[in-house]
Amino acid sequence: MPDALRQSVITEVPGPLSKATSKKLDLIFDARAVHFVTDYEKSSGNYIVDVDGNKYLDVYSQIASIAVGYNNPALTAAAQSPEMVSALVNRPALGNFPSHRWHDLLKDGLLRVAPSGLNRIFTAQSGSEANELAFKAAFILYRRKERGEGVDWTAEEMASCLKNSKPGSPDLAILSFANSFHGRGFGSLSATRSKAVHKLDIPSFNWPQAPFPALKYPLEKYRQENAAEEKKCLEQVEALIASWCAIFPTYVAGLIVEPIQSEGGDNHASPAFFQGLRDLTKKHGIVMIVDEVQTGKAPLYLQCSIASAGPNCVSTQLQHLAVRFGATGKFWGHEHWQLSCPPDIVTFSKKAQTAGYFFGDPMLVPDKAYRQFNTWIGDPARVILNKAVIQEILDKNLVEQCARVGEVLYAELEKLMSRYPDKIMNLRGKGQGYHRTFLSFDTQDAASFVLSMKRLGVNIGTCGVRAVRLRPMLIFDESHISSLIAALDTVLSGASQT
Amino acid sequence: MPDALRQSVITEVPGPLSKATSKKLDLIFDARAVHFVTDYEKSSGNYIVDVDGNKYLDVYSQIASIAVGYNNPALTAAAQSPEMVSALVNRPALGNFPSHRWHDLLKDGLLRVAPSGLNRIFTAQSGSEANELAFKAAFILYRRKERGEGVDWTAEEMASCLKNSKPGSPDLAILSFANSFHGRGFGSLSATRSKAVHKLDIPSFNWPQAPFPALKYPLEKYRQENAAEEKKCLEQVEALIASWCAIFPTYVAGLIVEPIQSEGGDNHASPAFFQGLRDLTKKHGIVMIVDEVQTGKAPLYLQCSIASAGPNCVSTQLQHLAVRFGATGKFWGHEHWQLSCPPDIVTFSKKAQTAGYFFGDPMLVPDKAYRQFNTWIGDPARVILNKAVIQEILDKNLVEQCARVGEVLYAELEKLMSRYPDKIMNLRGKGQGYHRTFLSFDTQDAASFVLSMKRLGVNIGTCGVRAVRLRPMLIFDESHISSLIAALDTVLSGASQT
Repeated sequence: MPDALRQSVITEVPGPLSKATSKKLDLIFDARAVHFVTDYEKSSGNYIVDVDGNKYLDVYSQIASIAVGYNNPALTAAAQSPEMVSALVNRPALGNFPSHRWHDLLKDGLLRVAPSGLNRIFTAQSGSEANELAFKAAFILYRRKERGEGVDWTAEEMASCLKNSKPGSPDLAILSFANSFHGRGFGSLSATRSKAVHKLDIPSFNWPQAPFPALKYPLEKYRQENAAEEKKCLEQVEALIASWCAIFPTYVAGLIVEPIQSEGGDNHASPAFFQGLRDLTKKHGIVMIVDEVQTGKAPLYLQCSIASAGPNCVSTQLQHLAVRFGATGKFWGHEHWQLSCPPDIVTFSKKAQTAGYFFGDPMLVPDKAYRQFNTWIGDPARVILNKAVIQEILDKNLVEQCARVGEVLYAELEKLMSRYPDKIMNLRGKGQGYHRTFLSFDTQDAASFVLSMKRLGVNIGTCGVRAVRLRPMLIFDESHISSLIAALDTVLSGASQT
Repeated sequence: MPDALRQSVITEVPGPLSKATSKKLDLIFDARAVHFVTDYEKSSGNYIVDVDGNKYLDVYSQIASIAVGYNNPALTAAAQSPEMVSALVNRPALGNFPSHRWHDLLKDGLLRVAPSGLNRIFTAQSGSEANELAFKAAFILYRRKERGEGVDWTAEEMASCLKNSKPGSPDLAILSFANSFHGRGFGSLSATRSKAVHKLDIPSFNWPQAPFPALKYPLEKYRQENAAEEKKCLEQVEALIASWCAIFPTYVAGLIVEPIQSEGGDNHASPAFFQGLRDLTKKHGIVMIVDEVQTGKAPLYLQCSIASAGPNCVSTQLQHLAVRFGATGKFWGHEHWQLSCPPDIVTFSKKAQTAGYFFGDPMLVPDKAYRQFNTWIGDPARVILNKAVIQEILDKNLVEQCARVGEVLYAELEKLMSRYPDKIMNLRGKGQGYHRTFLSFDTQDAASFVLSMKRLGVNIGTCGVRAVRLRPMLIFDESHISSLIAALDTVLSGASQT
């Protein structure tokens, strides 16, 4: 069946059943953000089906978190495995009573595709939690280095921290960037800077915010201006690290950055900018956290150990040589940057279907047990599912596919942009020498744009102030491009207005 | 087979295989807190089996989070259901694309046993997250009332919150109690006051800490002193609410309290104390959050709507009359208090196998959509499992059983206390006219006590500074008491020392 016929919308959007179900749900569970109520049993692959029987090509993918398609058979098999049933029924307190399968599950799953140089893991349940755990690791390391190795906690430190007072509760900060999104907890939200709706009325820490480069697109055309912009931002990052403690005094212990600012508008920066951040964090001895919650696809290349990490890295003790197989694309956004040494911490969630952080430096394991700890420390059931996602990506060469499809899709969007230059602007997502399907563009009224797209059977999302973002699954292929482009063309041409 | 023969320890504890597996695991995942490595396939009911083949009567239950036993057949059936497979494979962004089954799943599961008067829910993934979401709801409500209904956000508020500055990021606080434990995130950890190991080196908010009553046990014997102590603490709570804003100025928007301070040492207080807290929070217009993460058993009584809540409640708009069936025990700790109106928010996790908060007041739904939001908003797979836990509790009358068994167990522990008065002290857990198995006592060296118990085949935990806590599952029955008491007797008599 041709792609164009695959999606089909037979009612208004949302349809009457979606509306009625939402209304009923809203009495017990805030349903004001519901797009439509979904029939997941009828959804399949790239297509999501609502209760009214409307079928949409889904390039939003549960806010970028479905990797290999609805009702994927390989995932279904994993969900039905005896290992999964046991993990669901016998949920462990992982830190105290891990299963005898836990080591191998991590090794054969999440760690199989760990970023180069980061061979340790702490598991979590959401991107927010992963980022907060990373912050805590950074703060504990900062104070550990200040205190000196082997120096025990003082009575004053222990008593004061219970009162939320210094010196036990130190004035330490995580630097983040304007327009960033790192989560909704009190720590992660203090680093989030994208929209007032996320932050208003919630107390936050007095942490510094650096400007994120405001680049001009297409990047190649404005190479010089963009380089100047990035240089200026790097200077401000360094100035903030130095000045923040002088003014408040609150010391910057870590920095968090997204490879592509997603929720904040799909804002890109060049490898040179991130190299600059790596060098600055090394110079000032602060932890560099790369938030790959939205950009991490779900593991993509096989690696076997040992690359060399420079002696100036915060992660000094790494010796790691990565030999990569397959894949012209890369799984982790930061692997496009060719840093002088790996980031200290990489956080993940969403497409991984579980969450946590990778790290390499054993010094990032706190000085004592139970400091980085909680009852569940993640959910083995979701880690089992993650393993199946990884295997599916490798079996189907989905990273290669993603790079290949991204190239075609980008070219098609470029054509649309040249036809509708006032309606599709700042197309972005093409890397320097590589492609991906993580694409976006600005438009005049993103909210009504995506509603029009839904009416044509394409489920698509927005980000930032006026961006439309494409977050197709990794199984999105050439056969889906034509119907996506046809729908975009219809909306852009104004033919969909009724 | 007699109970005494059911547990069996055939190696040192932890055994050689546990040690070797932990050591290997520690290279990739912090394993320093591992008690033993577990074979969950071989574990069953109240018994947990380690990789060395040791079988323990488990009265720690994964830090109080297993309700109805390892490999419970009803839970296994739920884990194998088509509904579960779909929930695992097609993980939704619940706020945007809920399944058509979501409403009924909440109604027939979590809300079936909602605390009286609290008929709305927000789902989460951990106790920490649930508490932080409750804090956010309290802060948003506080500012909403300050701002006045229908008054829109100002440009200054929206701009300043992105800089973590006032007025958008207000100086608001949650009051908590000394020795409390509410979680490990930056907000929940700011309310946690139990141990330095949880808090040291982590920045925290300048929030007030009130004294929690230091009662004398047995409670009946010291009724008068305890009442005076509770009165003194209530006075200090009110003084803190008034003075905190005068000193800093940071306004108290909410108060969080555990029915029994668990991690902090199993500290109890009387219904009168909690009634006092309810009255104070009503008087000062602040949100009362009851943290039932450890005390909530997993729903225990059926209710059909409609009791009347006083007009002075923060939850003013409730009309709720609860008709309760069965059960001499109660599911929620706070239901023993007979408050003048329900708490504003009750949080849960652990035995629920999922997490979140219940509330009743529609004003606790934020003024706009997307304020209380995140990608996953909980995990439907875990909510399905919760529904099976609830059904099992109801089918097997486990709440009644728990009250019945608790009475016998308490009496047995009292006998031990009278025989070993210097080794088992401050036995606690008996309520005023009711019983439960949530019991504890102080001893001289809790850490070595529980190790000795493990060597005798009983997995038991500690809390606070010197307490041994019993957290048996709800399926723990009379047949398990004798082997538990025999092991305690052996350790207390010194016969287990080798």
